[in-house]
Amino acid sequence: MNNSPVGIFDSGIGGLTVVKEIIKILPNESIIYLGDTARVPYGTRDYTTIKKFADELVTFMLNKRVKAIVVACNTMSAVALSGIIKSSGKIPVIDVIKPTVEFSLNQKGVNTLGVIGTRATVNSGVYQTQIKKKNKAKSVFVKVCPLFVPLVEEGLIDNKATQIIAKNYLSYFNDKNLDLLILGCTHYPLLKKVIEKSFRRKIILIDSASPTAIEIKNILEKNNLIRNLKSKPTIKLYVTDAPDRLSETADLIFNGKLPVKLEKVRI
Amino acid sequence: MNNSPVGIFDSGIGGLTVVKEIIKILPNESIIYLGDTARVPYGTRDYTTIKKFADELVTFMLNKRVKAIVVACNTMSAVALSGIIKSSGKIPVIDVIKPTVEFSLNQKGVNTLGVIGTRATVNSGVYQTQIKKKNKAKSVFVKVCPLFVPLVEEGLIDNKATQIIAKNYLSYFNDKNLDLLILGCTHYPLLKKVIEKSFRRKIILIDSASPTAIEIKNILEKNNLIRNLKSKPTIKLYVTDAPDRLSETADLIFNGKLPVKLEKVRI
Repeated sequence: MNNSPVGIFDSGIGGLTVVKEIIKILPNESIIYLGDTARVPYGTRDYTTIKKFADELVTFMLNKRVKAIVVACNTMSAVALSGIIKSSGKIPVIDVIKPTVEFSLNQKGVNTLGVIGTRATVNSGVYQTQIKKKNKAKSVFVKVCPLFVPLVEEGLIDNKATQIIAKNYLSYFNDKNLDLLILGCTHYPLLKKVIEKSFRRKIILIDSASPTAIEIKNILEKNNLIRNLKSKPTIKLYVTDAPDRLSETADLIFNGKLPVKLEKVRI
Repeated sequence: MNNSPVGIFDSGIGGLTVVKEIIKILPNESIIYLGDTARVPYGTRDYTTIKKFADELVTFMLNKRVKAIVVACNTMSAVALSGIIKSSGKIPVIDVIKPTVEFSLNQKGVNTLGVIGTRATVNSGVYQTQIKKKNKAKSVFVKVCPLFVPLVEEGLIDNKATQIIAKNYLSYFNDKNLDLLILGCTHYPLLKKVIEKSFRRKIILIDSASPTAIEIKNILEKNNLIRNLKSKPTIKLYVTDAPDRLSETADLIFNGKLPVKLEKVRI
């Protein structure tokens, strides 16, 4: 089991930010990534639909005999996690929300937190619940930003229209006196500059990639699942649609060149 | 067969513009509409994926025993029509592109045409092919506008950001001297004002709804399929996801109140 790959999935290619961090801190692990680009975005859909889609991604990963499952998607982590854990049996499941919340609460001098995400993530209330559970004294404000995903996917990263839309969404936080903002969607780190510009004063921006990768390392170690072969690990990056068109944005999301080409797969 | 419903499908709720026109000119026909809102948008996806999705929508309609199939979606009309016709057997199939092209070419004084649409529609080259086939002398220029669908779905109809994005997309036509622009996506009529403002001079804007409804009437009459009952016809509007959230935008797309509520259905 130790030498099986880690399975990581997302609704699209945003979860590659997590893959990048895993490669950085766990360079000897084999990885299978699956982005469901034939049905992205998930964040605008109903819970029952998201759960059904998530279940199909888990089945794919189980057939690939992965040793751990990483839900590299805030939307699925928010609304489909219990189903994913159930379907995964004894295989450990790591989501992006729990490590991101813990990492955020460990920052110094943070009393008021903001969270931005897709409609499904924000409406689930999962960030508010998890933050309050850890520390009742913190204030949390959340805001839905549905157009951020399509803007990133179309490459409008540093565009005037994106700036207007961001400023409009984030003006909700103007009187909230935030100390920290959680980017509750794996696409959002690409809009970091635009988001920073929309705030009058400097605030801490937290994304899920690094906290999640650290959590994966901890879980693999705790379960004695660290790969112990010296041969080169295998990395497979699958999408359900449009591998060629997406490879440029994937490079951007990966913040550099992808280690292997995106391959199309049917699920 | 005459008294069976007309089946109309789209990737989302944009096709309701066509339903509205059918009700106007064929008020005695029963209608079944299906919008695949669980997997919208189709226009950014690969052809094989769009064809697979289209096939599933046809199966749904055949199970409902419709008397005619209307593909109220430019993307599916552009890349999946031959498959849809094959799967539909003897049932007549009406797409949105053929009637829209004919209607556009019948306008007076039109020599240079523009077409805007999704990536799949524009890249298929179907508009250029059909226009040139009818009249070689016409000039045709096409432009992909991928963000128009999510902007409409989020209700940013008359927003400054939408204006910037529109102006940016449509500046491609600045030196083309267009006489007419085809809105090659059923979502785009909602952006008519924004699109008009992006052009320096007045041009004719054509959308698919009315030409397609007229074509349906002609096909039903030609095939002796006009409903001959005097009882009230039945209208069913199905979506595969998020009926409640979409009903407001659906009213907007329908340009008034929907005749019946959107219902969720599994396909």
